[in-house]
Formats: sequence, structure tokens, C-alpha cells
Amino acid sequence: MIIVPEKEIAGLISAEECFDAVEAVFAAMARGEATNFPVIREAIGHADALYGFKSGFDRAGLVLGLKSGGYWPGNAEKGLTNHQSTVVLFDADTGRAHALVGGNLLTALRTAAASAVSIKHLAREDAKVLGMVGAGHQSAFQMRAAVAQRDFERVVGWNYHPEMLPRLAETAEELGLPFEAVSLEELGAQADVIVTITSSFEAQLKDGHIRPGTHLACMGTDTKGKQEVDPAILARARVFTDEVAQSVSIGEAQHAVAAGLIAEGDITQIGAVIEGMAPGRTSVDAITLFDGTGVGLQDLAVASRAVDLARAKGVAVEIDF
Amino acid sequence: MIIVPEKEIAGLISAEECFDAVEAVFAAMARGEATNFPVIREAIGHADALYGFKSGFDRAGLVLGLKSGGYWPGNAEKGLTNHQSTVVLFDADTGRAHALVGGNLLTALRTAAASAVSIKHLAREDAKVLGMVGAGHQSAFQMRAAVAQRDFERVVGWNYHPEMLPRLAETAEELGLPFEAVSLEELGAQADVIVTITSSFEAQLKDGHIRPGTHLACMGTDTKGKQEVDPAILARARVFTDEVAQSVSIGEAQHAVAAGLIAEGDITQIGAVIEGMAPGRTSVDAITLFDGTGVGLQDLAVASRAVDLARAKGVAVEIDF
Repeated sequence: MIIVPEKEIAGLISAEECFDAVEAVFAAMARGEATNFPVIREAIGHADALYGFKSGFDRAGLVLGLKSGGYWPGNAEKGLTNHQSTVVLFDADTGRAHALVGGNLLTALRTAAASAVSIKHLAREDAKVLGMVGAGHQSAFQMRAAVAQRDFERVVGWNYHPEMLPRLAETAEELGLPFEAVSLEELGAQADVIVTITSSFEAQLKDGHIRPGTHLACMGTDTKGKQEVDPAILARARVFTDEVAQSVSIGEAQHAVAAGLIAEGDITQIGAVIEGMAPGRTSVDAITLFDGTGVGLQDLAVASRAVDLARAKGVAVEIDF
Repeated sequence: MIIVPEKEIAGLISAEECFDAVEAVFAAMARGEATNFPVIREAIGHADALYGFKSGFDRAGLVLGLKSGGYWPGNAEKGLTNHQSTVVLFDADTGRAHALVGGNLLTALRTAAASAVSIKHLAREDAKVLGMVGAGHQSAFQMRAAVAQRDFERVVGWNYHPEMLPRLAETAEELGLPFEAVSLEELGAQADVIVTITSSFEAQLKDGHIRPGTHLACMGTDTKGKQEVDPAILARARVFTDEVAQSVSIGEAQHAVAAGLIAEGDITQIGAVIEGMAPGRTSVDAITLFDGTGVGLQDLAVASRAVDLARAKGVAVEIDF
């Protein structure tokens, strides 16, 4: 059995490798060759923690397992990450434990990879301005993954807490792109691609903010009640997602569906676009919106890739289990 | 993080230690201090495997985690156990992965501990004859755990495949008890305590087989459709279980409830008896029946004990994770 500790992940796997793994498993989902199992999520009644698992099986890649972990709000004051994730992979042929992989960094990477996959397949080819809504921990991963997909010339950003905007400025500088902090109105008026990555419980971007031709990747909403954008945007957008069942229940689309503005049948699995089974962007003026809810198969895909890389690079810890 | 490989378990933890751990967590469940989370169980569509997890949190013991694994029917011909289990424990204060524990032997031990707990709290004090229905892999663990609870003088046994009966004879001999292979009629007429541990899908023990005063521990039914005993036995027995919700849905009681012979409210959580919150055996002539469905908290309890013992005995593998 192979152990890949959290501290090794940063040196092992690139954003590009995560992109490839996530794109491949989204495609396998659309072909019916990869399945996510029901999500477990429980308030455990201790340390205000939310704990649970996402799990699944990719028959195409023979990747079976789960990501376990959750949110421990008191961790930060102990010098630990509040979100704690661990991936366990099993041998699909025998059920034996195959690998244990630190999942904290991988979670940020796989989430960023998902929005980047949506940008590749849905954004206008001539997109030049990237808009970032949200400046938390994951925003840097999102920006790095997004800029690899188009020839972006600059980044505009907004955050509910303006004092966090320097994170976006620093990441843009690292990427060699000019950055400007703007209002939501300005952001919508300038950006060709908008990534939202917040923990908001009410719509920040309003319908009037969004121009024709924009692609939005809404990556923050993964729970009942969370919301990042006006449901009216979904009503006039072509809506895509990682998994339709999650999109309508815990994703950004939950609000538009509840309001009767769109129906489950209006939402397209991104894997179907990747596979050429469904159209993506149909005109330069279409608004496309990717509802990234986060599925277990993403975690398993990047963790499996990390295990392969750890073996190849000789940093995997092999134990007799 | 601590690794306790499968091969170390046999030398680490005794049946008595498993008994104590399981009895304690059953009691914590009855006090509302320990909770099992929903069970995931999926036919993965590869290698005819059933895969899933049982998970939960014991606030009293601060034990959080899951048992993952399943049933791979092709393993035996590869020289591997068909049932593969791995326990992952997490630090309840931080969510960080705490331990990875081989779960194959522990699964047999915790199942045997559950029926032994039921014998301790429900069987007649003067029980002398132990009846075993089933002679598979788990029967030896069941017999060893059962005989520790009463002054049994002999063992009688029955199995659907008689050629497997020597396993029961060998285990009885190891325990210093005479063994006799009998019919189900003779078994019911002679045994004071009956343990059923089969993978049967129809009732083996009939109502007419069971004398007043008998205690039955039905340990084989853990899935919709499985069945070991006549539902009429449950109608005249006092029925106990590890977890009522599982008992009525996937346990032995599913059939008696579906037939309208008993209701959910007729079934008592064994932890309530352990805690003195509910009566157990109320007369020497009462028939008591324990429906052992198997809950994740049992797995976590014995795995946590194994981790403590592994550290104390210096066989835990500590890795930087």
C-alpha cells in the first residue's frame, strides 16, 4: 500500500496534470463509465465540525475510493487548515486498500481544474479579461488554472472583504498579468470569463451585471442555501455542470430550479460537451454558466494521478498493509 | 498518523477487548452519545463487487471514522479474502487522518463481540448448551466469543452444507467442549443459546424448533432479502438489536415487520439494556432474540482499541502524513 503525504503533493502534481485527470473523468461520467456514490455529510456535534465523504468508481480508469474529511472551524487557531481531506483508493480488482493520499491541496487543485475545463470548452476563444469574484484561499488556484485556457490580458477582481484583494493582485502578478480591483458592475462589464469562488449565501453578481458572450464558472456553491449569482442569469444562460443531480440540489442551480426559472432538463453535463455528445457554446453572444458542485470522482482522479507520479518520482511511501 | 497492518491485528487485540469496546459503544449509542451515519453500499459494476462504507462518531470515546470495503467474490481464487475491510480513523478535534487499520479480522471479531454482548445481557444465567447454525469463516469467532459468557457444557451445530461441520467440531475442541452435529429440530430442542451466522436467504430455524427460555443471536442478516429464522419466532420473542433503523430495514426483523407481526416500537436497542434504561430478559421462559445487523461504530470501536494496543506494544507504524 502506498502513502502519499500531504507535504509531497505540491512537488508532485501540476495544475495541468489535474486538468487532464478531471477532464478525463468528466468525460467518463458522460459515457456512463464513472459513477459518483451518494454523499455523506454530517454535523458531528463536536468542535462545530462538518464531516463526510464523497466517493465513486471510474470503470474506465479503474479508480475506486473516497475522499473523507470535512470542515473544522477551530483549526485555523491551531495552525491547521480548516478543511481537512484525505483520499483513500482501493484496488478495483480485489477491494484491498491501495493508497492513502493527503487531500487538502488536491481539493483546491481539482476544483480549479473543473472551472478550467469549463473555460476550455465553453468560453469564447477570444476572451481577454478574467473576472475573479472571491479572494479566499482557493482564488489563487482558480486564477492560475483559468489563465492557462485563454490568452487573457488582464484580471479584474472583487471581494466582499476588500482587505483580501491583495491576494488576487499577488496571484495576477505571479502570472504576469495586470490586476485591477473593481466594482461588481465594472467586473461584469469588462470580464469575458468570470470565476466565482466564495462562500456566499446570497447572490453577489446580479443579472444586469452580465454581458452577452460571458462565460461564468460558479465554483462556490456546494451546499443547500449557498448562492453566488442571480438566478435570472441562469434563466438566460446555457447551464452546464459536473453532475446534474448535485447541481439542482446543492449547486448554484438549486435557486433557479426552485424558482421555476429553469428545469433539470435544461442543465447539461460538461462531460457530454467534452465527448461531443452535446453542444457547448453555440454563439459568440451566448452566456454560458458552469455550476461546479464538486464530485468525488474529481478527487479520486487527481489522487490517482498523484499516486502514479509519486511512484514514478520515488517519493511514495510503500508500507506492508 | 498510525498504520496498523492487517497482519498485526491477530497478535494485538483479544476477543475480550473487542467485547469491551463493542459493549461500551452500544451503551454510548443508547445514551445518544454515539451515532452511525448512513451506510453506502454500491454494486460497482466491476468484478461483481459490492463496495461501500459504514461510518459514525462516538462522542463519548471521541472516535470518528469509517470502515470501507466490500465483497469481491473472485478474491478467493487469488488467495485473498473475499470480504475486504479497511478502517480509517480521524482526529475528532481537527479532522486530520489519525489511523489506518486493517479491518478483515476486526470485522469477524466485532461481529462475534456483538452476539456475545447479547448473550451476556439476555441469555439465561443457567444456559448450558450452545447451538451454532452456520459453519462458515465467522462461526469460529462466534463460538469463541459466546462460550466466554456462560458456563456452557457442550455445543450442538447445524450447517446447510454438512461437509463444513468439522470447522465447528474443531473450534469446540479448541475450547474444550464436546460437539455434536444435529438436525435443526434437535438443535432447537437442546440449545439454550443459539447463534445463527449464515448467508441464508430463507428461514432455516422454524418457530416450532424454538423452546421457551431460548436466547437467539441472529448475526447473518445484514441486507434486504437475507433471512435466517421464521418471522413467527420474532412475534413471540422479545426482540433486541444494535440499531433499530437497520433492524427493520436490512436486519432479521425486516421480515417480521413486513408481515405485520411486530412493529418498529417492539424492538429494543441493546444499549438501552446495557445502560439499565430498558429491561432485558424478564422471565426464565421468555424467548429473547438479538438482531445483529452490524454498525460502523462497532468497527470504529475495535479499530480504535487496536490502535491504542499497537502503540502500547510498539507495533504501530508511525508515518508523517
